[in-house]
Amino acid sequence: MKYDIVIHNGTVITVNSEFDIIENGIVCIRGRRLVKIEARTEPPDIPKAEKVIDAKGALILPGLVNTHTHLPMTLFRGLADDLPLHEWLEKYIFPAEAKHINPKTVKTATRLACAEMILSGTTTCCDGYFFENEVARAVRDSGLRAILAQGVIDFPAPGVRNPAENINHASSYVKKWLASSALITPSIFCHSPYTCATETLKKAKAAAVSNNVLFQIHAAETKQEWDRMYAEHRQSPIHYLDRIGILDQNTLLVHCVWVDDADIDIIARRKAKVSHNPGSNMKLAAGIAPVQKLLKAGIPVGLGTDGSASNNTLDLFGAMDMCAKLHKVHTLDPTAVDAKTVVRMATIGGARSIGLEKDIGSLEVGKQADLIVVDTHQPHLTPMYNPTSHLVYAASGSDVKTAIIGGRVVMEDGKLLSLNLNELLEKTAAIAESISSRGNQH
Amino acid sequence: MKYDIVIHNGTVITVNSEFDIIENGIVCIRGRRLVKIEARTEPPDIPKAEKVIDAKGALILPGLVNTHTHLPMTLFRGLADDLPLHEWLEKYIFPAEAKHINPKTVKTATRLACAEMILSGTTTCCDGYFFENEVARAVRDSGLRAILAQGVIDFPAPGVRNPAENINHASSYVKKWLASSALITPSIFCHSPYTCATETLKKAKAAAVSNNVLFQIHAAETKQEWDRMYAEHRQSPIHYLDRIGILDQNTLLVHCVWVDDADIDIIARRKAKVSHNPGSNMKLAAGIAPVQKLLKAGIPVGLGTDGSASNNTLDLFGAMDMCAKLHKVHTLDPTAVDAKTVVRMATIGGARSIGLEKDIGSLEVGKQADLIVVDTHQPHLTPMYNPTSHLVYAASGSDVKTAIIGGRVVMEDGKLLSLNLNELLEKTAAIAESISSRGNQH
Repeated sequence: MKYDIVIHNGTVITVNSEFDIIENGIVCIRGRRLVKIEARTEPPDIPKAEKVIDAKGALILPGLVNTHTHLPMTLFRGLADDLPLHEWLEKYIFPAEAKHINPKTVKTATRLACAEMILSGTTTCCDGYFFENEVARAVRDSGLRAILAQGVIDFPAPGVRNPAENINHASSYVKKWLASSALITPSIFCHSPYTCATETLKKAKAAAVSNNVLFQIHAAETKQEWDRMYAEHRQSPIHYLDRIGILDQNTLLVHCVWVDDADIDIIARRKAKVSHNPGSNMKLAAGIAPVQKLLKAGIPVGLGTDGSASNNTLDLFGAMDMCAKLHKVHTLDPTAVDAKTVVRMATIGGARSIGLEKDIGSLEVGKQADLIVVDTHQPHLTPMYNPTSHLVYAASGSDVKTAIIGGRVVMEDGKLLSLNLNELLEKTAAIAESISSRGNQH
Repeated sequence: MKYDIVIHNGTVITVNSEFDIIENGIVCIRGRRLVKIEARTEPPDIPKAEKVIDAKGALILPGLVNTHTHLPMTLFRGLADDLPLHEWLEKYIFPAEAKHINPKTVKTATRLACAEMILSGTTTCCDGYFFENEVARAVRDSGLRAILAQGVIDFPAPGVRNPAENINHASSYVKKWLASSALITPSIFCHSPYTCATETLKKAKAAAVSNNVLFQIHAAETKQEWDRMYAEHRQSPIHYLDRIGILDQNTLLVHCVWVDDADIDIIARRKAKVSHNPGSNMKLAAGIAPVQKLLKAGIPVGLGTDGSASNNTLDLFGAMDMCAKLHKVHTLDPTAVDAKTVVRMATIGGARSIGLEKDIGSLEVGKQADLIVVDTHQPHLTPMYNPTSHLVYAASGSDVKTAIIGGRVVMEDGKLLSLNLNELLEKTAAIAESISSRGNQH
C-alpha cells in the first residue's frame, strides 16, 4: 500500500528515548501520522508514495516546539528596546496595545508570526494573548499546530474592556475551540500572580480544570515580582500559587527565573511544567533560570522565545544556542546543558511541558507527522562531525527548507505554502506605518 | 564623471560619529573608495555608474569586522563540544591539529571560512594561527580584508616543529606580507602568557614593534590562567604583560574576561585594545568580560567570534545578539550595552581595536568601500521601527545579500562571487571524512 509522503536520503534525528540517529534514513507518512522510520536498505529501495521528498543529505528531525509566544505582539517587534521593563511596558507596549490591537491587526500579525515560525522550523507553538479567537483562526489557516490561550488579567485588556468579564470570556473561548480543530487546542493564560487577584487565579484555574485544558501563567520572572509577592503574601510566587491550588500537571509556569530549591521541589511534586525563555530573560535582564536544577528534579522544561516585542524573533534555533551557552557561562561549567539536552528541550521536552508528548516531539511510529528538514550543505554547517551539535551551535532558522505538520507539507524548498508571505509583509508594514506615525515613540 | 558602483534605494546606516542614518540614501564608489554618500533627491536622480545596485529598501551598512578568528580551525567545527576546556584541547584539538593541519588543509579550511564570513556580512577579520602564509594566500583569493598573524607558542606547532624557530618564523612571515597586498596586513600572535615564556613574549613584541604591526595575545581568558599567572608572577595576567613591556597602542588583548579595575586602568593608560568574544566565552564557560567598564574607560573594544572549533560559526550577527543580551542579564540592567553600542563594536569599534579605523568601520567619504546590504523584506525583520535594533536583535548572517570589499563586489544577491563554494564544501567534507575515520573520537 502506497504512502502519502516518503522522505529519504537524510539523517534522521529521532529524539526518541534513546536519541537514535539513523544515517540515510527513510520516513514514511500516511494521513497525519508517521507509519515507518527505518534505515535505507541496499540496494536502494524507496517506498512508493504520492509524494517523495529527497532530503539531499540533510537532517530530518521533529518540528520544534515553541512553548511560549504572544503571536500578535509581532506587530511591535523592535518598537522599543534597551529600556527598563517598567518604561518599556508603560510607555510603549501598553499604549501601543490599547491603540493598535484589534481583530484585524491581530489576524495579520498572527499570520506573519506563523509564517516566521514555519520558515524557521517551528511546527507547534504555545501562545497566550487577547482576541484569541482571531489568533486561533489565523493559526488554523497557517497549518501550524498550537495550544492557544485567551489571556486573563485584572485590568482592561484588548477585547476585554471589563475585567469582571475576563473569566467568562476565557471560558467561552475555550468551549468554542474544544474539539473544533485537529491542530488547535484551547487554553487559559493568567498573566501573572501580581496582575491577577487570588480569586481570579482560582476561578481561571477552575475553568481550565473543568475543560481539561492547559493553564498557563508567567511566574517568578523578575526579582521585582518576587519582592512584591513576598511583601504581600510572605511567600515566594511559586509557594503562593501552590497554596491557592494552581499547580498541577496541567499547569505551565512560564519563566521560573527566581525559584529556589524549595520552589523547585513543589513544582516537581505537583508535576507542573516549565517554559524556559533564555533570550527574553536575557534581553529584559530578568535573570537566569536554574534550568539544570529544574531538569534534575524531573520537571518537563520546554524552550520558548517569548513574544517578538521582547526578544525579538521567533527563531527557536537561536533560543537553543542561547540556552546552551547561557547556562555554561553562568555555572562556569562547559559540560552544562549539552547539545542533546537542548535539542530535547526544543522538541520532546517542549511537547511534554504542554501535554502533547503522546502526539509530537519525536519521530516515532504512530506519532503525528510533524517534522522539518535542515539543509546542511552550507559553509557554516560544513564539516559536520555531529549533527546534534550543529543543530544547537551552528544552524539557524534559515537553514530549514521543508516543514510538514500533521502530514501536510507547509513549506518546501524554503517556500511557504500555507500563507501568502508577500501580502503579509505588505499588510504588516502598512499597520506599522500607522503605529509609527501615531506616536508611540516617546 | 561616472562612478564605478552606485548603490541606491536603501537605508544607509553610516556608523559615523553621529550614527547618522540616511533613509533612501545613495552610496557612490570610485575605485576602492567611498566618494559620495547622500540622501536621494526628488525627482529621483540616480548617478551614472558602471554598476548600479538597487538595494530594494534594504539596509546598507559598513561591512562587519571580526576581531578574533582562527580560520583554519573551521576544519574542526563541532568536532568536540560540551567538554571541559582541558579535555577539549588535549584529547581533541591538539591531536587533530598535529595530524591534520598542513598547508593543503589550511588552504581549504581558510577558503571555506572566508566564504562563510563574506556570506554572513563580515568584510574584515583579524586572525591568528599557524601556516599563516597559506592562510594569507587563501584570504587574498577570497577578496576579504584581513589582519593575519603567524602564531607563536613555546611548543611544537603546525609548521613550526622547533619552538626555538617560532620568532624567526613569525618575523619572516611578517616581512613577506608587509606591503605585498592591499587587503592583507601581517601581524604576530603570541598564544598566551602561560604558553609563551617571558623572553618569547618580549622578542615577539619587539619583532612586531620593529615592523610596526599589530601584536595579538589571548589574555585573562580563564580563571585557571589567572590563578596560574598569579602563582608564578604574583601579578594578574594584564599586570604581568604590562611589566614586561607588551602593552601599547599596537597590542590587541583577546578576551580580557578576568580583569579587574586596576587591569582596566592599565589597559586604558597603555592605549591597548580588546577583542570581546561573547559566544566563545559562554560556550567554553570562560566567564563574562566587563565590557561596560572597558568601554567606559575609553578602551576600543571589538567583537569577535573566535575560531569555529570553539563557537561554532563565524556569524557576527549572532555575536552581536549574544553580546547585547549577555551583559544585560549579567548586570540585571536591560539598558546595558544597547543596540547602537553593539553595532559600533561590530564595525568602527572593531576597526579601532585592530588599528584600521582610518580606512574602514564606517561609511564615510574617503574611507574604503567595504559595505554590506541586509535584506529586510522578510518575516523575522517585519515590521521595522528601528533598523539598528533589527541588526542586533533580529537579523542573522543569512539576511546579508550583497558585500563589497575595497570596491570589489564579492557577493551579490546572496551568491558568493570570489570563490567556488560547492568545490570548497566538497573538499572540506572529504578532509573531515579522514579526520573522523582516523579516530579523534576518543
